[in-house]
Amino acid sequence: MSDITDLPAPAVLDIDAWTCPAPVRDRPRVVMGHGGGGVLSAELVQQIFTPAYGGEALAQLGDAAVVSLGGARLAFSTDSYVVRPLFFPGGSIGDLAVNGTVNDLAMSGARAAYLSCGFILEEGVELETVTRVSRALGAAARTAGVEVATGDTKVVEAGHGDGIFINTAGIGLVPAGVDLRPQRVVPGDVVIVSGAIGVHGVAIMSVREGLEFGVEITSDCAALGGLVEAMLAVTPDLHVLRDPTRGGLAAALNEIAAASGTGVVVRERAVPVPEPVANACAILGLDPMYIANEGKLVAFVPREHADAVLEAMRAHPLGAESVIIGEAVEAHPGMVVARTGLGGTRVVDQPIGEQLPRIC
Amino acid sequence: MSDITDLPAPAVLDIDAWTCPAPVRDRPRVVMGHGGGGVLSAELVQQIFTPAYGGEALAQLGDAAVVSLGGARLAFSTDSYVVRPLFFPGGSIGDLAVNGTVNDLAMSGARAAYLSCGFILEEGVELETVTRVSRALGAAARTAGVEVATGDTKVVEAGHGDGIFINTAGIGLVPAGVDLRPQRVVPGDVVIVSGAIGVHGVAIMSVREGLEFGVEITSDCAALGGLVEAMLAVTPDLHVLRDPTRGGLAAALNEIAAASGTGVVVRERAVPVPEPVANACAILGLDPMYIANEGKLVAFVPREHADAVLEAMRAHPLGAESVIIGEAVEAHPGMVVARTGLGGTRVVDQPIGEQLPRIC
Repeated sequence: MSDITDLPAPAVLDIDAWTCPAPVRDRPRVVMGHGGGGVLSAELVQQIFTPAYGGEALAQLGDAAVVSLGGARLAFSTDSYVVRPLFFPGGSIGDLAVNGTVNDLAMSGARAAYLSCGFILEEGVELETVTRVSRALGAAARTAGVEVATGDTKVVEAGHGDGIFINTAGIGLVPAGVDLRPQRVVPGDVVIVSGAIGVHGVAIMSVREGLEFGVEITSDCAALGGLVEAMLAVTPDLHVLRDPTRGGLAAALNEIAAASGTGVVVRERAVPVPEPVANACAILGLDPMYIANEGKLVAFVPREHADAVLEAMRAHPLGAESVIIGEAVEAHPGMVVARTGLGGTRVVDQPIGEQLPRIC
Repeated sequence: MSDITDLPAPAVLDIDAWTCPAPVRDRPRVVMGHGGGGVLSAELVQQIFTPAYGGEALAQLGDAAVVSLGGARLAFSTDSYVVRPLFFPGGSIGDLAVNGTVNDLAMSGARAAYLSCGFILEEGVELETVTRVSRALGAAARTAGVEVATGDTKVVEAGHGDGIFINTAGIGLVPAGVDLRPQRVVPGDVVIVSGAIGVHGVAIMSVREGLEFGVEITSDCAALGGLVEAMLAVTPDLHVLRDPTRGGLAAALNEIAAASGTGVVVRERAVPVPEPVANACAILGLDPMYIANEGKLVAFVPREHADAVLEAMRAHPLGAESVIIGEAVEAHPGMVVARTGLGGTRVVDQPIGEQLPRIC
């Protein structure tokens, strides 16, 4: 396990002089960054989708919506999956399609119960490939304990798609007493991450860009419903959970800081970055804080419960390397800063787009 | 309003000599027909998806799955939308994305409550187009009384998508006492269709293929939740509802016949085909029975309730032209036959693929 401070030292910024990135207005066309989970994605949602749809549940902007139906409190979420390549070390688009949506539900405290599954196939893709992806999807669903309940398939002409796109939506029950929202974060909350960051993005990059980093890096793609259950068994009073996928840990922390109106301080040395990920990032000039994960979560936990929650996380196979990386603070509301190993401070910006497109 | 018998007379077949189309096995690659809602689509589901996923709900193979969660009986359904062009007479991909999924839920008797919405955007598409589609989607949702609760956006590189693909999934409550399944169909059930067929598919074709049929044909795209509520107010004991989208009325009737093990007889003269649709089909050698609809439903109703249900349908704006077109029979189980105007009989096959790809 390496340390993020092994990377080239970031510039030390004057926080007071720092301003949010200006919205990129009057951009006439969709760019890759609109799918990156950063500022451009947020603009698309805030300037186009939210005004068009309205609705209270959407305005929560969580990983999943929490809605009431027939007396049940349900989490409901969707993600489309366009990863390239379809198969990568540690998983496939089928695994992602299950785990990504299961994790979005888990971040609201819900155990996923049912998934829908929509395929958009490109004419000419091999049925053998469709079969392999479907089997991976089915196996991942069984591992996660979720049932694929309904599906749909569309086909587009060759050259108008890209092999296989998958959308899954999921529903699950939110347990009584659980209310996970960034608005519940208060200064003093302890920030815990469930293990090493940056692994999924670097794993995809290593196969797609033909890069070799000396060792094979395997995606951390996994379903986090069981880990979240173990955490909630300690106390239902966790404040917020996020799975730091597109935009990485930086985007997740920034979203929470912005929505809660608190500041967030991260100790860089405490953030677990595996050596192969750190090396890959150093070579490519990338920051592990911005790289996507698919089997990790970040939790904001009331200080009095932090030790017990951390212990429960470490007792779970998917949280064995959980660590405290920082805290919520009153200072610099809405802003995430990292204390560097050299005693300096840098702002961890919300990413604009995505360093690596199509990683999920 | 024309009559299907104005079209070139179909061959009169010897039903006893007729066999189901042989499964198209050992086909190595995806073809357009795999997305057509006919035999090829069914093969994909039965030979690849269902074995890969397992699960009881999926095995129902209804337009929506009916599942239990937290004591609530929920309908859950998904569809992806890849229609070209994005805007057409009478609607857009945004309208379809709402109405298609709302209608799938309605076919299980559920009023749609919440939708998820996943966009797959192609790099370079104009944000103005995204905005127009989103507004159409939002307006359609408000008309249907459903809330867009959660969403996702992915972007793929130019040339790896086709402007805008949308997936929606929906959830809604199934009212107590309602159990709509093809397995409940029995000989003697009356078959009612809620209005003119073939309209949506011909509307899309008229703008896409640059064909002119003398008059503009406007898609019938509409949300059928209210019509279904009006029907269920007469009696919750309807047997099955289907919205005849891809594969048209022929595919819907064949699926019901196959799943119920009853025969279905349709009186061709009774099937409402608007004159422009009949003319377009005559020119192109298409059969209106196989053309997609997006605002119609077909109902199998116990004989004793048929008149009252028909009356309730006609009292609703979206069912004003409802008519009885046939009945379920003991003869030729699993097979759909049409009595022609000349006193002959023809088999209405399950379509293999789709006459018109990408109509939804």
